[in-house]
Amino acid sequence: VIERMAVLGVGLIGGSLAKAAKLSRACHEVVGWGRSPQHLQIAQDLKTIDRYELDLPSALAGANLVVVAVPPGAMGHVFEAMAGHLSPDTVVTDVGSTKASVVAAAHAKLRRHISHFVPGHPIAGGEQGGVQHADSRLFRGRRVILTPLEDTYPPAVALVRGLWERVGAEVVEMDVDHHDHVLAATSHLPHLLAYALVDTLATMDEKREIFAFAAGGFRDFTRIASSDPQLWHDILLANRGHLLEMMDRFQTVLGIIREAIAREDGQALLNALTRAKEARDHFARLMDERSENT
Amino acid sequence: VIERMAVLGVGLIGGSLAKAAKLSRACHEVVGWGRSPQHLQIAQDLKTIDRYELDLPSALAGANLVVVAVPPGAMGHVFEAMAGHLSPDTVVTDVGSTKASVVAAAHAKLRRHISHFVPGHPIAGGEQGGVQHADSRLFRGRRVILTPLEDTYPPAVALVRGLWERVGAEVVEMDVDHHDHVLAATSHLPHLLAYALVDTLATMDEKREIFAFAAGGFRDFTRIASSDPQLWHDILLANRGHLLEMMDRFQTVLGIIREAIAREDGQALLNALTRAKEARDHFARLMDERSENT
Repeated sequence: VIERMAVLGVGLIGGSLAKAAKLSRACHEVVGWGRSPQHLQIAQDLKTIDRYELDLPSALAGANLVVVAVPPGAMGHVFEAMAGHLSPDTVVTDVGSTKASVVAAAHAKLRRHISHFVPGHPIAGGEQGGVQHADSRLFRGRRVILTPLEDTYPPAVALVRGLWERVGAEVVEMDVDHHDHVLAATSHLPHLLAYALVDTLATMDEKREIFAFAAGGFRDFTRIASSDPQLWHDILLANRGHLLEMMDRFQTVLGIIREAIAREDGQALLNALTRAKEARDHFARLMDERSENT
Repeated sequence: VIERMAVLGVGLIGGSLAKAAKLSRACHEVVGWGRSPQHLQIAQDLKTIDRYELDLPSALAGANLVVVAVPPGAMGHVFEAMAGHLSPDTVVTDVGSTKASVVAAAHAKLRRHISHFVPGHPIAGGEQGGVQHADSRLFRGRRVILTPLEDTYPPAVALVRGLWERVGAEVVEMDVDHHDHVLAATSHLPHLLAYALVDTLATMDEKREIFAFAAGGFRDFTRIASSDPQLWHDILLANRGHLLEMMDRFQTVLGIIREAIAREDGQALLNALTRAKEARDHFARLMDERSENT
């Protein structure tokens, strides 16, 4: 059990983890910290956190675990401000959607404390950000990826793993680069494509009419384009190496399909569509099995 | 009220319309026709249709309205087989997702009967095809686009419009080319992108692991890639002119975003993401208003 947990950035993810940790008695006290006193007050009023501090050193004082849940673009600044205010045995983790960029910032700013830093990423969320939407069940049955480094202190990994398991998540460890590659494929590229499709239609003269005839399939397909643009700006730039590689793969496949359509090569088109449907159906079955097991 | 309606192709759409027409008393009798006696027997057992015929002239005999609901690729053959077996005042309509290709086939095969042909497209459906999934409420609150030609007999349009309104749909008329342009943007391109994304991942060595880490956003985004490959093969080829044009627009936007990411031009990236989110949110509100009105 964690005596005191500091949550830096009490939004959807930070707030949900705070709530879940308190409810599951994974920790005794949650202290919040963030940019906005108003949001922190709301979080306290909602009992998402026990109390909050407006200056970072006070928030860190006596914390056994610090969860950095600020937007990716703010991660470096927060690490810098934290350094020098951490007790030697305080464990630090984060919830960022990209890991190489966070690890680089942690190396540069946390310096020797890097041994107690456990990079983490819960595969959970929603289009609706903010502590108002925090949900203690957000992580139940979800995967959380931890990407410990070679010299990460093993008990620090165990502490973070224990917290996530306590709130219902399934913890998987992998290396930093592999995480960023997998997430570029399953999350960052789909978000980018959804944004690009909506932007394509939004810049057409007849956009009003076009959107009026969009049906359920379009709605599902573009749901992720309603995600926070600033957050996704940060994520896409932070993981641009892997993302550009995935974009190139996608463009190649799209080009092949385009050629099949232009040449009216029905067999090539049908092959691509059939392969995709079979993979999607197979994957959906696996997802269903996972959901049922939770 | 329609005395006898013949439904050619009793699948999800044909079956749902048959069911809805009977329930709403828009017609007295529904006769089914299709390739598979087994499917027609199921449709009759489910009371989706009143009876069925295995040869086309018998199915058409005495029908006031013929609804052609076969896959797009079979439309021409069915029109050809119908010609010569239609009473002069029998109205014919279809439910195809593309309209120029259907109208061209109707011109070629129905010949002078084209004056009684009302091209139609209900913006409704589901990934699960087949008469087993037919639902009499499938069209409630949905748009149905009719694309009558210059010389279409106005009472024929009125008959088809009346049927769709009776089963709860909102009928809109537009010209054939405009329909195909709008649908390329809102339906055909998104389907193609979803198929292409899944195919991209399905052809990677680490596909098993990649799919294992896909979350809800990916699931929503790729749902339409579970649609029937043969059906979408037909649709994408039938509307290839408009589709290729939309693909080019999309590739241009994707290229601009790619450049912004590669050059780390955060402002250009943020602008595109913000514009897309605002359009998506605006569009979702319009969709919600439409759903509430039904």
